[in-house]
Amino acid sequence: MPRIPTAVRPAYDVDSLTDVAVAVFSARGYDATRMEHIARAANVSKSSLYHHVSNKEELLGHALRRAVGALTAILAEPGAREGRPRARLEYVVRRTIEAELRHLPEVSLLLQVRGNTDVERWALDERRRYQERLVELAAEAQTAGELRPGVDAALFVRLVLGMSNSLVDWYRPDGTWSTRQIADAVVDLVLPPARATRSR
Amino acid sequence: MPRIPTAVRPAYDVDSLTDVAVAVFSARGYDATRMEHIARAANVSKSSLYHHVSNKEELLGHALRRAVGALTAILAEPGAREGRPRARLEYVVRRTIEAELRHLPEVSLLLQVRGNTDVERWALDERRRYQERLVELAAEAQTAGELRPGVDAALFVRLVLGMSNSLVDWYRPDGTWSTRQIADAVVDLVLPPARATRSR
Repeated sequence: MPRIPTAVRPAYDVDSLTDVAVAVFSARGYDATRMEHIARAANVSKSSLYHHVSNKEELLGHALRRAVGALTAILAEPGAREGRPRARLEYVVRRTIEAELRHLPEVSLLLQVRGNTDVERWALDERRRYQERLVELAAEAQTAGELRPGVDAALFVRLVLGMSNSLVDWYRPDGTWSTRQIADAVVDLVLPPARATRSR
Repeated sequence: MPRIPTAVRPAYDVDSLTDVAVAVFSARGYDATRMEHIARAANVSKSSLYHHVSNKEELLGHALRRAVGALTAILAEPGAREGRPRARLEYVVRRTIEAELRHLPEVSLLLQVRGNTDVERWALDERRRYQERLVELAAEAQTAGELRPGVDAALFVRLVLGMSNSLVDWYRPDGTWSTRQIADAVVDLVLPPARATRSR
């Protein structure tokens, strides 16, 4: 067999193959994607692809771990753990929007999983845990009189995450709105002004 | 061929077959649904089903027309046409949430269409038109000093619709929250109190 110079073949690893898979999943839909589609998009043979991963579920798993990892990392950041509850809540909401915009196709996949495989069930569990942590934070802010008192904390969090998750449907990186503008708008809508809460 | 008494066979029309199709599309996903799945769920033969509709696209079309019809009808109602801009905006937001909850599976289908067929393109156009009307209304309310001034009206509407559209992902009719509670929460979050605007 003639040796093909390695220089003319793109050097793939699992991480860059995940990039390709995410793009193909987004374009075709996950269910309709077959390994050969990913191999073709990556310009490698199917056997090269199988050298790196066993199946498309594995690639989905890598993509979901990116999205989940980006979100759960936020909760460990100092801004999410120190300060008044309202400030921590604002921090988490802003960082969630940033993370979602940075990993838009991965987050889109995360929002579509229905729990058909182990990795999908893991991702759903992590999403639920993330949401629960936000509910705790919102409840804390409410107890401290730093959040609108009328709204149930669990409903509040579902609505806020619904708002930020909707980015996967309508956000286009065409420069109409920056990440900062979107985060400002969401915070402006859902959180009372920091000034007003301080005076209570 | 033995005649089966009509009394033992459910009497279907296009409307009730659409109900069945919507349920099957929701469970299986639209792409994975075949006419035989719908026939089986309706407990009719495939040829009986084809007596009523030519293909699944036609059934999707009926479902999309329900969702689009429910939304666009709102804009013609007196509450959407008469009164101060903020009151009209609140009316439309509340009625949108009501319509989405009443037609949840149809709205879910509407939010998934990508414009692959004529009826899907029509539905996308109608969604866009609906959104534009809301942007006009939000801009009007802003000009009248009845809406937060800092947020771009088009961004505001995308975020509010993102919130209400997220209902298809998380709403469960298990009694946790009523339609009224959800509408109250959304209005409370995204619109300034009516009282505060009157004083400007």
